[in-house]
Amino acid sequence: MTHQDELKQLVGKEAVKYVENNTVVGLGTGSTVKFMVDALGDRVKNEGLSIVGVPTSERTRKQANLLGIPTKGVDEVDHIDLTIDGADQIDKNFQGIKGGGGAHLWEKIVAINSDKNMWIVDESKMADELGSFPLPLEVIPYGSRQLFKRLKEKGYNPEFRVQDGQRVKTDSDNDIIDLHLHQIENPHSLAVDLDQMTGIVEHGLFLNIVNTVIVGREDGPEVLKAR
Amino acid sequence: MTHQDELKQLVGKEAVKYVENNTVVGLGTGSTVKFMVDALGDRVKNEGLSIVGVPTSERTRKQANLLGIPTKGVDEVDHIDLTIDGADQIDKNFQGIKGGGGAHLWEKIVAINSDKNMWIVDESKMADELGSFPLPLEVIPYGSRQLFKRLKEKGYNPEFRVQDGQRVKTDSDNDIIDLHLHQIENPHSLAVDLDQMTGIVEHGLFLNIVNTVIVGREDGPEVLKAR
Repeated sequence: MTHQDELKQLVGKEAVKYVENNTVVGLGTGSTVKFMVDALGDRVKNEGLSIVGVPTSERTRKQANLLGIPTKGVDEVDHIDLTIDGADQIDKNFQGIKGGGGAHLWEKIVAINSDKNMWIVDESKMADELGSFPLPLEVIPYGSRQLFKRLKEKGYNPEFRVQDGQRVKTDSDNDIIDLHLHQIENPHSLAVDLDQMTGIVEHGLFLNIVNTVIVGREDGPEVLKAR
Repeated sequence: MTHQDELKQLVGKEAVKYVENNTVVGLGTGSTVKFMVDALGDRVKNEGLSIVGVPTSERTRKQANLLGIPTKGVDEVDHIDLTIDGADQIDKNFQGIKGGGGAHLWEKIVAINSDKNMWIVDESKMADELGSFPLPLEVIPYGSRQLFKRLKEKGYNPEFRVQDGQRVKTDSDNDIIDLHLHQIENPHSLAVDLDQMTGIVEHGLFLNIVNTVIVGREDGPEVLKAR
């Protein structure tokens, strides 16, 4: 295991301490989350912790089920008590960008249906302000070239996400456009602007959502109270 | 032909008088639009009118092609000069509701990419204010039951659109929720609220979009300048 992975594992173990018995837990996706789900599986196995997981991806669902964590879909539970997920960038006001893995639509749907949200990240994700990480948009394929032109005219530096010469598709079969903004001065006004643009299903700005952030520092996990 | 159809046919014939040679024309969907496309085909055939149509549905594309009107997709044209479409309700300020046929996402994408928009309707569609016609939302299936709960809590009277016991699917394979609002006091603030809700791809409020409305009146088509 690399040193980086050791730090992520420590963060994952720290995160699952916050999971209470008989609760519904949203399970994010990503490399740090993977360690967290492992640690959650240990608690289920060793302590008899009783939870229901709501996974944000097929990958996480499989991992959870293999570890003996029962899962349900977001529409099969009444509510979610706590969701633990990663993030691609977090600013000093605990606003975030997600969607580097292209799953921000489903992740946001799970997040807004959760009483509490926790993000677990390595320290490279912490920044003074957002924008050096490209902002992902999930967009409807129909008319997406016209949308791209509009985004370009606004100076948002759009780029279709492509892999092996093909447009990357989301779980909802939409396209992804990444905005290379470099610096986002006002995430809230940008969010309102993007919300109102036809053809954008969801953007990767997660504003006023996270309650607790756990950062993998060299000297151990740091727990930050966001709101 | 019924008397109602005769009125629609007159509206369709009036509408195509506004189509100029060598332009790109957005072609809506619906019963009045069908008569308009027929009339447009007559102009192509009889006058040698040269246009490219951008259809908002497969049905309209087939009709246009059969009539000798060449068509392109919305992403294959630089811009659209004029779009002629129907509407489900138009208020006294020329704000509209569309989506009764479940196609409002694609219709809105075509509309916002058009220099000018014309709506052609029978007079039953004209109202003092919007809301007696249910407002359609295209929604992401993932998490749509949670979204439904949210809409209900807001007092928006949501109802999934169902046919033969199955949820109606849009061309983008999403679900439709109709809001039975009865009366929409402020369409603009409602639009902002719906724009910001995660899981709603697009609502059927078409605000500040239409330039000209042609209404099928008993004494002939009435042309109204909206903006």
